[in-house]
Amino acid sequence: MSDLNIAILGFGTVGKGVHHSLKSHQSRLEKVLGKSVRVVAILVKNLEKHEQSREDGVLLTTNYEEIINLHDLDVIVDAIIGCEPGNSYLQKALEKGIHVVTANKEMFAHHGEELLALAQKKGVTVGFEATVAGGVPVIQTIKQLLQVNRIQKVEAILNGTSNFILSSMRKDGHSFEATLQAAQENGYAEADPTNDIEGYDAFYKGVVLSQLIFGEKPNEQSTIRKGIREITADYVECADELGLRFRHIVTLFKGNDGVQCRVEPVLISMEHPFYQVDGVQNAVSIKTDLVGTVQLQGPGAGMYPTASAILEDIIQISRPVSTEPAYLEYQGDASSSSKWVFFSNNRKLELPYDIKVLARLSDKAVVVETEEVERIILEHPLLTFFELIGDYRHTTEKVIV
Amino acid sequence: MSDLNIAILGFGTVGKGVHHSLKSHQSRLEKVLGKSVRVVAILVKNLEKHEQSREDGVLLTTNYEEIINLHDLDVIVDAIIGCEPGNSYLQKALEKGIHVVTANKEMFAHHGEELLALAQKKGVTVGFEATVAGGVPVIQTIKQLLQVNRIQKVEAILNGTSNFILSSMRKDGHSFEATLQAAQENGYAEADPTNDIEGYDAFYKGVVLSQLIFGEKPNEQSTIRKGIREITADYVECADELGLRFRHIVTLFKGNDGVQCRVEPVLISMEHPFYQVDGVQNAVSIKTDLVGTVQLQGPGAGMYPTASAILEDIIQISRPVSTEPAYLEYQGDASSSSKWVFFSNNRKLELPYDIKVLARLSDKAVVVETEEVERIILEHPLLTFFELIGDYRHTTEKVIV
Repeated sequence: MSDLNIAILGFGTVGKGVHHSLKSHQSRLEKVLGKSVRVVAILVKNLEKHEQSREDGVLLTTNYEEIINLHDLDVIVDAIIGCEPGNSYLQKALEKGIHVVTANKEMFAHHGEELLALAQKKGVTVGFEATVAGGVPVIQTIKQLLQVNRIQKVEAILNGTSNFILSSMRKDGHSFEATLQAAQENGYAEADPTNDIEGYDAFYKGVVLSQLIFGEKPNEQSTIRKGIREITADYVECADELGLRFRHIVTLFKGNDGVQCRVEPVLISMEHPFYQVDGVQNAVSIKTDLVGTVQLQGPGAGMYPTASAILEDIIQISRPVSTEPAYLEYQGDASSSSKWVFFSNNRKLELPYDIKVLARLSDKAVVVETEEVERIILEHPLLTFFELIGDYRHTTEKVIV
Repeated sequence: MSDLNIAILGFGTVGKGVHHSLKSHQSRLEKVLGKSVRVVAILVKNLEKHEQSREDGVLLTTNYEEIINLHDLDVIVDAIIGCEPGNSYLQKALEKGIHVVTANKEMFAHHGEELLALAQKKGVTVGFEATVAGGVPVIQTIKQLLQVNRIQKVEAILNGTSNFILSSMRKDGHSFEATLQAAQENGYAEADPTNDIEGYDAFYKGVVLSQLIFGEKPNEQSTIRKGIREITADYVECADELGLRFRHIVTLFKGNDGVQCRVEPVLISMEHPFYQVDGVQNAVSIKTDLVGTVQLQGPGAGMYPTASAILEDIIQISRPVSTEPAYLEYQGDASSSSKWVFFSNNRKLELPYDIKVLARLSDKAVVVETEEVERIILEHPLLTFFELIGDYRHTTEKVIV
């Protein structure tokens, strides 16, 4: 039972997330894979900066050649950004028969096709779940649906930063520029936000999905890539009054002129699942012939969601010893929401004075937040009550808080 | 290259859906599997009723022994309902080394553990994707997430009928009984609706998920299974005024006393993704340690969604020739939504008289439905416009339709 030896290229947020998750989930991985997973090398830009990360038995280097020439290297995890040197690094790895897993969407949008072809020739694998929507298993779900279904159309929110900005503009009523600046100050947008707010990042992800679903890149002639700079506070306010919300959407379908990929701000109605997708969330809606439309939603970026996607790819490569999932050790989450709605049923609605009331609808219903719901139920056996799930910030006129 | 020989048990909606989909997707399956998939036998209750389905080379029988004794049978698809005879049939199949795929949640909730253990002993597989949420790939997604993530909690809408009734009550304002009767007349609820509206069906699915995620059944002592009969039109109206919607929810988590499974009506706030999940849709929210919370949503039942889940299981059993998805033949969906919002930017909002106006916000913005958006744009180059996605039925006072 030999180890699975891994090298990580790049030691920023994603690289560190993978490194940490491989350690924290070591026993889990051993159970699933039937062998240990070991980080044997890390490629960094600056040795001094990462000196404190140095560990016994782990090669810390700025020289990729040292990594690629290691004996018994099984998987290279690409956690660097930009087309180069990522593409060249991964080509060399595949040439040597080393599996690769990448989170680098720009590189994979441009060179994914060649890398996949090279991998097939060499009998190794390229994992790219982390290139689209972070930890939300979009790639794997599409692969599964595709085995049987024809995919007719994809609509998706694939950039957390632009979605965060559009959501914040609605909630705070501020201008695009002010919201962007606040997002930058709080770490939700980069110093140079072009990639996110102009739709390049979302477009790269659209290209990755296009190649996966249709086997080809989008037609460049008909590609639309519009950013969200033109969305004013006034537009957002008008939209809100009409019951609509702005979202920065990637649309993908195959027409007579090849695959059409459009990245642009659109308005979403209250009846559409994307209406609710606020903040840095990602969401994907996949329209198919047999199943109909399936939606996935979750955190599209971040250290651990992305690390999870990369670890899943590593497991795929190494083929679990059992196809049945090994069941998890107990780790409970017994915390329960403590918001409740009580209906009076034409009786007087009298609750203990120390209960926090969130809202009241005349004398018909009351929304409370409490950890002592059992006490209220015992003391008021004739009230009907239901648990309330989700954040609750209600402010209609009929409500007295 | 031998064929993959399949027998279908039961020829109702699910059985027919599988039969039809295997035919309509024959070339697709051959491409993915590298062999033909052939239905060789169908088990029916009443031979006369299905006489017109008789085909050359396909055994149509009421006698399971004839099926189980066929030579070269690879997979048995279980599309019958209830614990028996399903369980005995599948036990016999597994004993003989035949793979099984089931859509029977009640049977699988009760006997899944034994069937999986028997399958492992015999070196064959039990596919059960179709037992939970129809074509929404919940089982596969959980298996994938579980490889790396600890799953802490699941909240889900798993019964289309009860969700349809609760949504209709809100939309139409009718009583529970009137809504149920209309649902029965329109085929959305069965003549005996107990299984759906009392939460038995949702509970069976909760049990299947509990075994998959935690490796054990829910603790019977702490199980809650409440139906939706007690929800009155008055409650629904009050909830709506408070910005809340009723949903029939399955909650699953592991506490100190084992797995807790609760099926009950709860209220959902506007900020929660389930707020939007109307009609016969299913939705599952999976809270994990690394990825965070991932949501899936889609059609939870129906002939083709369920058939798709069964076909995916058949493919899993037969292991595709290539792990890369074979790309799909072209089948485009060039239809695009034809709803648009135009902002006036302080100019006069004058649109061609023949354009259908859905809503107008004083002289600031107008919502239109048209197939000639290019013409409007050409004729009104100074207007800003965005596409509108989702149904749109807006009725605020500020809107003149």
